[in-house]
Amino acid sequence: MTDAATDVTTANRAMMQRDLASAALGMVVERDEPGLAVVSMRVRDDMTNGFRITHGGLVFTLADTAFAIACNEDDTVTVAAGADITFLKSTVAGQTLTATAVRRTRSGRTGLYDVSVVDEHGDAVAEFRGRSISTNRTI
Amino acid sequence: MTDAATDVTTANRAMMQRDLASAALGMVVERDEPGLAVVSMRVRDDMTNGFRITHGGLVFTLADTAFAIACNEDDTVTVAAGADITFLKSTVAGQTLTATAVRRTRSGRTGLYDVSVVDEHGDAVAEFRGRSISTNRTI
Amino acid sequence: MTDAATDVTTANRAMMQRDLASAALGMVVERDEPGLAVVSMRVRDDMTNGFRITHGGLVFTLADTAFAIACNEDDTVTVAAGADITFLKSTVAGQTLTATAVRRTRSGRTGLYDVSVVDEHGDAVAEFRGRSISTNRTI
Amino acid sequence: MTDAATDVTTANRAMMQRDLASAALGMVVERDEPGLAVVSMRVRDDMTNGFRITHGGLVFTLADTAFAIACNEDDTVTVAAGADITFLKSTVAGQTLTATAVRRTRSGRTGLYDVSVVDEHGDAVAEFRGRSISTNRTI
Repeated sequence: MTDAATDVTTANRAMMQRDLASAALGMVVERDEPGLAVVSMRVRDDMTNGFRITHGGLVFTLADTAFAIACNEDDTVTVAAGADITFLKSTVAGQTLTATAVRRTRSGRTGLYDVSVVDEHGDAVAEFRGRSISTNRTI
Repeated sequence: MTDAATDVTTANRAMMQRDLASAALGMVVERDEPGLAVVSMRVRDDMTNGFRITHGGLVFTLADTAFAIACNEDDTVTVAAGADITFLKSTVAGQTLTATAVRRTRSGRTGLYDVSVVDEHGDAVAEFRGRSISTNRTI
Repeated sequence: MTDAATDVTTANRAMMQRDLASAALGMVVERDEPGLAVVSMRVRDDMTNGFRITHGGLVFTLADTAFAIACNEDDTVTVAAGADITFLKSTVAGQTLTATAVRRTRSGRTGLYDVSVVDEHGDAVAEFRGRSISTNRTI
Repeated sequence: MTDAATDVTTANRAMMQRDLASAALGMVVERDEPGLAVVSMRVRDDMTNGFRITHGGLVFTLADTAFAIACNEDDTVTVAAGADITFLKSTVAGQTLTATAVRRTRSGRTGLYDVSVVDEHGDAVAEFRGRSISTNRTI
C-alpha cells in the first residue's frame, strides 16, 4: 500500500470514528482501501420493520456507509449525490449482513460505486449503486 | 374515507406498531391513507455521519417507511423491490425531516411511489422513488 | 409568458431544429416552456424490437428529448447526468406515445425532472426521472 | 458451450433478426452468450442531438439491446422492467460505441444486468443497470 493510500485510510478511520450513525447500528469496517470497502452489521430486533424483516432502509444504510468509505479516496470530502438499490432477499434479526463497495468508474468530480450486500451464507440480499460527487472541501 | 380505506389504515397502524426500526428512529406517522403517507423524524446526534451531517441512509430510511405505508394499500403484503434516491441538501442534528409519499402509478402487482423529504423550512432534502411489488401473502 | 421564457423557447426551438435524432424518429414538440415539455412520437415498424413491441430504448429516447427541452430553462447548456426509467406497458407499431416532462426540483447546477409517457388512450407506458447538470457553456 | 447455450444463442439470433430498431440503428452483435452480450454501433449524424453530441437516448438504446440479449438466457421471454443510466462522456458522429452487458444477479423471475458503454478508445461513455423480469411466454 502506498503512503497516499495510508493517508486515505487514516482519514477514513477518523471519518468513521465520528460516524455516530454507523456506530449506533453496530457496523464494523472490515476493509478500507481507496475504491474498496467492506462493512458488516448484525441485524438487531430494532432494525426490523412491521413485517419482521430487516428494514430496507437499514440495508441501504449499511451499503451507504461502505460506499462512503470507498468513495472518499483522497483528502477532499466526497459525498453521495444519489443511489439506487434493488432488494433481492429479505433477512431477519440475528443475521449478519456484509456490504462490499467497489469503485466502478471515477472521472472529474463524479464517481460510480457498486455495493453488493450478502448475508452470512453469501446469498445476495441487495445490489446498490452509488453516485458520488467531490466537494471543494478537504477532510 | 371508505371502510376499505379504514381497514387499510388499521392494518398499516398494526404494521407500524411492529416496526421496531422506525420506532427506534423516533419516526412519527402524520398521515396514513391508501397511496399517501406523511412521516416525520427529528435528527438525533446518533443519526449523523462522519461529516457531522444526517447519514444519507437514515434519510433514505425515513422515505422508505413513508413509502411502505403508502404502498400497502390493501390487505396483501406489498414490499419494496427497489428505490432510487437523490440527495439535494444536507441537514444536521436537531432538524426535523418530513417525508411525503404519493402513489405515482400502480398496475397489477407493481407500483411506483414518489417520496419528497423536506426539512422544517420546507427546503427539499431528498427525492426518492420507490418500486413496489405485491406478494401473495395477506397482512 | 415572460420575455425570459420566450427567449428560452426560442433557444429550445433552435436546439430542436439541430436535433437530428429526434427528427429522424419523427418526434413532434407539442409544448415547450421552462420546466415543462410535451413531445409525441408515432411508433414505426423500425422502432420495434425482436418481440415486435416498441424498443424500450426508443421509449427512453422520447422521454429523454422531452427532458432535454424541459431542463434547458435558461441560456446555459444543461445536459443529462443520468436517468432512471420504469417500463409499465408495452406498445406496438402504429401507436402514438406522448411524453410530458415536468421539473420536480432544481437547485444550483443540478435538477430533477419527471417524465410520464402515455399511449393514445392515456395509459401509462413508462415513468422516467432525469437528473440534469448545467454546464458553464451558453447555448 | 453447452447445447442449452447454443439454443439460447439461436433463439437470440432469431430475436435480433426481428429487431428492426437495432437494425435501423446499425447495431452489430459481437458476442451473444447466456448472461453476456457485446453490441457495437457507429454513431451517425442522425443519432446526434441539438448540442451535436450523440443523443443520450440512443446510447441508452445500444445498452438496452445488449441487455436484452444478455438477459434472454433461456426459452422464456424476458423483458426490461426498468433501467438506470449514468452518462459519463459525450461522443460525436463518426465514433463507434461498444456496449458490454454482464449478468450481475438473477433469482426467480427477476435479474440485474450491468452494461458498460465505451468509445473506440475504451473511454467510459455510460454505465447502465437493467432490471429484467421473465414472463410466462416462451420465445
